Amino acid sequence: MIGEEPSKIRTREAAEHDFIVRALTAVNVRDQDARDVADVLVAADLRGVESHGIARLETFYVRRIEAGVVNARPTYTTLSDRPTQFALDAGNGLGHPPGKFAMGQAIEKARENGVAFATVRNSNHYGIAAYYAMMALEHGMIGLSMTNSTHLAVPTFGAKKTTGTNPIAVAIPAREHPPFVLDMSTTGVTFGRLEVSERKGKPLKAGWAVDGEGRETRDPLIAKTVGALLPLGGYGTDGGGHKGYGLGALVDILCGVLAGGLFGAAADVPETGMHGGIVGNFFGAFRIDALRDADAFERDLDRELRTFENSAPVPGAERVIIPGEPERANTERYRSEGVPIDPKVWEAIDTMAERLGIEKLERFTVE
Amino acid sequence: MIGEEPSKIRTREAAEHDFIVRALTAVNVRDQDARDVADVLVAADLRGVESHGIARLETFYVRRIEAGVVNARPTYTTLSDRPTQFALDAGNGLGHPPGKFAMGQAIEKARENGVAFATVRNSNHYGIAAYYAMMALEHGMIGLSMTNSTHLAVPTFGAKKTTGTNPIAVAIPAREHPPFVLDMSTTGVTFGRLEVSERKGKPLKAGWAVDGEGRETRDPLIAKTVGALLPLGGYGTDGGGHKGYGLGALVDILCGVLAGGLFGAAADVPETGMHGGIVGNFFGAFRIDALRDADAFERDLDRELRTFENSAPVPGAERVIIPGEPERANTERYRSEGVPIDPKVWEAIDTMAERLGIEKLERFTVE
Repeated sequence: MIGEEPSKIRTREAAEHDFIVRALTAVNVRDQDARDVADVLVAADLRGVESHGIARLETFYVRRIEAGVVNARPTYTTLSDRPTQFALDAGNGLGHPPGKFAMGQAIEKARENGVAFATVRNSNHYGIAAYYAMMALEHGMIGLSMTNSTHLAVPTFGAKKTTGTNPIAVAIPAREHPPFVLDMSTTGVTFGRLEVSERKGKPLKAGWAVDGEGRETRDPLIAKTVGALLPLGGYGTDGGGHKGYGLGALVDILCGVLAGGLFGAAADVPETGMHGGIVGNFFGAFRIDALRDADAFERDLDRELRTFENSAPVPGAERVIIPGEPERANTERYRSEGVPIDPKVWEAIDTMAERLGIEKLERFTVE
Repeated sequence: MIGEEPSKIRTREAAEHDFIVRALTAVNVRDQDARDVADVLVAADLRGVESHGIARLETFYVRRIEAGVVNARPTYTTLSDRPTQFALDAGNGLGHPPGKFAMGQAIEKARENGVAFATVRNSNHYGIAAYYAMMALEHGMIGLSMTNSTHLAVPTFGAKKTTGTNPIAVAIPAREHPPFVLDMSTTGVTFGRLEVSERKGKPLKAGWAVDGEGRETRDPLIAKTVGALLPLGGYGTDGGGHKGYGLGALVDILCGVLAGGLFGAAADVPETGMHGGIVGNFFGAFRIDALRDADAFERDLDRELRTFENSAPVPGAERVIIPGEPERANTERYRSEGVPIDPKVWEAIDTMAERLGIEKLERFTVE
């Protein structure tokens, strides 16, 4: 979890993947779809984004399928299929398989036509946005991924939630340097940060959240219960909060309105509640070599990223970090040392495994 | 200027346009190029973005041409021309004509192929990013425009400037509702805000700027002279400053590295100094009707934007604002009431007119 040491109780990547597939196939998800979900959740845990990994397996996916609000075996409908654009209705199934499929379509079409976009509507929570953007990297392309979500954030000077955390992810390949991978919510912080503050009994920081009337609050309980998140840039316009609000609205327009799915008031439901079909996505893939020699680009990007990394840090800071670098380092480390899973999450998935009658996830403890 | 009443000394849109053309043709700029520049500068003043209008005519454009660091009559070179992608070398001319040309290419190619991108390298300051994104609106398309710039901002935990204010603009057409037009720098505030604070003798707000060692400062003079701007989200990572830094870096990668122009250390020169060819742009155009029926989209976007506008405001605020709405309202007002120009700017352009031997800009005073 954010700002905490990784759990010493670990599992292996392959074991976690198998476990997620067991859990999802136990509730009637198709094997290949379950594998797609596992790919994305394991990637999140490897990257250290624990809030978007196996921690959500039961509440966001298994329980919603059991409740019948999300389809275990959806029918996908292609709404538009053109040389540079693709639109899919995901049939209210889990969000990861149609996300991977649509991003794959964008990549294939971009290979033929230079650039392509894909939308998905009538879908569900698709995990980390970066996963889909990063699919473009192995094809030497730039990848883009966005999703809207249930409402968690107020607009600038607003008292009522109108958008989600609405992340934007962009992945750009370099040559020797690891890729540039930006994956950012368009709110200042995510809901998880409010939970961590509450658990630690610490006040919220400026620019994070508002109370039920839209006024800034430092009280994590008020923010979590009746309040909402603030856009990136904070309260009002002084710190640029209207820019974060604008970015969040942009994501909702592309993922909700342009995808032809739900948007606005329709998404005003509790994030952890029993609902389905609320989410839409927007994906893009760009060929670099249609604009510039790809080798020259990647070498120049190496140079650019090293310029950032080698630039002087503020006193007390170790160095300037490239977007995506901490997550890449985590992946390397957790592949070798095991994937950390929070003790509370272990408890929850063990209980779920018993309930579903599946083999538990293997674990080991590190020093 | 920001936070100040518009000047009571006004001019008319057409008169301002003519004057800008007179000034630029007096320093040997081609008539059509001068008209392109005037289109963008007048649009900025009409939108109330005075920092990017006629206020910069002399320092950013006329003086640099006179100094020979920017070419009055550049040769453009097409670097790549494909069905969905277009890349231009602007020959170190003024930024507005190649910007309009490249965005026009993106629109034409998107009309044929659904979506298209264009880059410009070896160019100069192109005015407001929104102008180019909004070119897509009259074609019923979504428009995207970004530019890098001379270095003004530090990266997160950095002490040295590595990026500019690097704005992102996106314009999306609605039907009855005015369009959604987001035009945001990826820094918390622009350099102009530091100048306003200094002039008013007010301390800077949190998250705006750092001193020469990268530590946050509230002193406008230190920030302006030895310091730098902070990314959107402020100092460090608490408020999401790493997201603003990531967005700024993304803009530099697309406008600098992908466009094949200058980036990184090469752009580390004073914004107001005598330099040329430092800037690159990235443009995009998307057809809506390749993904969804355009009428249905525009009606739904009307609904979405009204949802924001009609949502409850925080106590004391009038209402929630749609991105682009204040600038649209200004345009309507200043078209009818005259374009306000700051007294100091009047002085400067009068002096310039005398120096260039051209007719002065006509003016009138409002109550």
